[in-house]
Amino acid sequence: MAQTHTARLMDGTRLAARIIETSSAAAEDIRRRTGTAPCLATVLVGEDPASVTYVQMKRARCAKAGIQSRHVALPASVGTADLVHAITELSQDPGVHGILLQHPVGPHIDERAAFEAIAPDKDVDGVTMRSFAATAFGLPGFVSCTPAGIMRLLDEYGVELAGKHAVVVGRSAILGKPAGMLLLGRNATVTYCHSRTADLPSIVRQADVLLAAVGRPRFIGGRDIKPGAVVIDAGYNPGNVGDVDFETAKDRASLITPVPGGVGPMTIAVLLAQTVQAAAHQLNVT
Amino acid sequence: MAQTHTARLMDGTRLAARIIETSSAAAEDIRRRTGTAPCLATVLVGEDPASVTYVQMKRARCAKAGIQSRHVALPASVGTADLVHAITELSQDPGVHGILLQHPVGPHIDERAAFEAIAPDKDVDGVTMRSFAATAFGLPGFVSCTPAGIMRLLDEYGVELAGKHAVVVGRSAILGKPAGMLLLGRNATVTYCHSRTADLPSIVRQADVLLAAVGRPRFIGGRDIKPGAVVIDAGYNPGNVGDVDFETAKDRASLITPVPGGVGPMTIAVLLAQTVQAAAHQLNVT
Repeated sequence: MAQTHTARLMDGTRLAARIIETSSAAAEDIRRRTGTAPCLATVLVGEDPASVTYVQMKRARCAKAGIQSRHVALPASVGTADLVHAITELSQDPGVHGILLQHPVGPHIDERAAFEAIAPDKDVDGVTMRSFAATAFGLPGFVSCTPAGIMRLLDEYGVELAGKHAVVVGRSAILGKPAGMLLLGRNATVTYCHSRTADLPSIVRQADVLLAAVGRPRFIGGRDIKPGAVVIDAGYNPGNVGDVDFETAKDRASLITPVPGGVGPMTIAVLLAQTVQAAAHQLNVT
Repeated sequence: MAQTHTARLMDGTRLAARIIETSSAAAEDIRRRTGTAPCLATVLVGEDPASVTYVQMKRARCAKAGIQSRHVALPASVGTADLVHAITELSQDPGVHGILLQHPVGPHIDERAAFEAIAPDKDVDGVTMRSFAATAFGLPGFVSCTPAGIMRLLDEYGVELAGKHAVVVGRSAILGKPAGMLLLGRNATVTYCHSRTADLPSIVRQADVLLAAVGRPRFIGGRDIKPGAVVIDAGYNPGNVGDVDFETAKDRASLITPVPGGVGPMTIAVLLAQTVQAAAHQLNVT
């Protein structure tokens, strides 16, 4: 019987733990040298159970890493002006080094206006227009956490990007779009696909690096994956199911992220790392 | 003898003239209603002959369209701080509605810092980070002039974009990158290619819409063009030569922009249109 090929797993849990360890040491160094610990402000609108859980998890990870957090909970009924006001106060508060607005916020709120109230040097979640443009232009600035985490995973596993064809399925402002720009900045040829793409399989089959970021369970079948491709699954659907059909994909890919334990843990690790980086910058610790 | 197919030309000269006519009427309306004509500030660093010519041409077109212009000429030796200062003053001057920094500026200047000194509502050339992000996110804002002109040409000729594969060759901050984002916003599948792309012909052959924006004469051969493709040549190389080999491309494309007379005239038309739009906004003319 022929040996069945199976892709090597890209272990996000392990890499994230290492990044958090480094950030934790840096946070302690900052606290020791300045008397001030890095502080992340978390802003939550309403009581959506998933959002509440995410924010709690982020705050717990911060605490474990020696990063303080300050929580601002606003009622679901809050208007755009009051939310912008609350975020602007945090932007001006020297005791806050990073700001995370848990999103989506309610449909009655102008989420973009809320994001833009975050000072650029505190935008550790990389959600502002300026941060996006900096990412696209290769300028200094904070990168949206999930795309930044994906790049770290690719580097950790030594994936060569220059000249390779990277296919990004999904075009959200915080994931698909910035991820494509980062891959382009690393000299990959980048194709953006989405729900309106005419013949998705024919494009997926060309991908040396495939990034699935659509949020539809098993949307991409393994049969369409180019043998030897690197598959990054940023999907996280109910029941711990990714956007890629893992079972069939793993037999063709050379490297693949599991769900869970691939991209997911990287997002929060980057958030902590960028918070510590923001604090170091604001507290003049070099 | 078989009839030879030839692409229909996309006449940028004619469409640009129509846009300028509309902008001219709108400028006159603004002047009549407010007593103030729209005003574009042009900033030129040094005396590079091509840059001098471009600025003169833009100012002449403004004058013809009833748009005032104010010229700020700075010596080639000007530093970043002084250039930023000059642009900041224009940003704060209520008599100036739009600002154009002729670029490239000298290599000793931080061009990005100079661009970012342009107030968002006066960024009629669409060069700031905020304008780029607005373009990428489909938010209100000024679009980089050449990509905006290309979209107007595509619309003028009724080119359907949704679901089509658009291939952008080139990834500059003012042309390739924003053009790709605009095409993506119109639901095209978008591939960015560049000098490091491994097999450019194989990607070009897939393009329903091809945008050449590399600045290399006849870089893209007609033989690689998909029959029936729409070909936009944003290249403008010495000797009026585009980035596409026009003679061979025109026998395969369904629509193609000539060089000159295609994309070129559109850039300046959009600049004037956006200047009038900025003035209308700042002078509260609706």
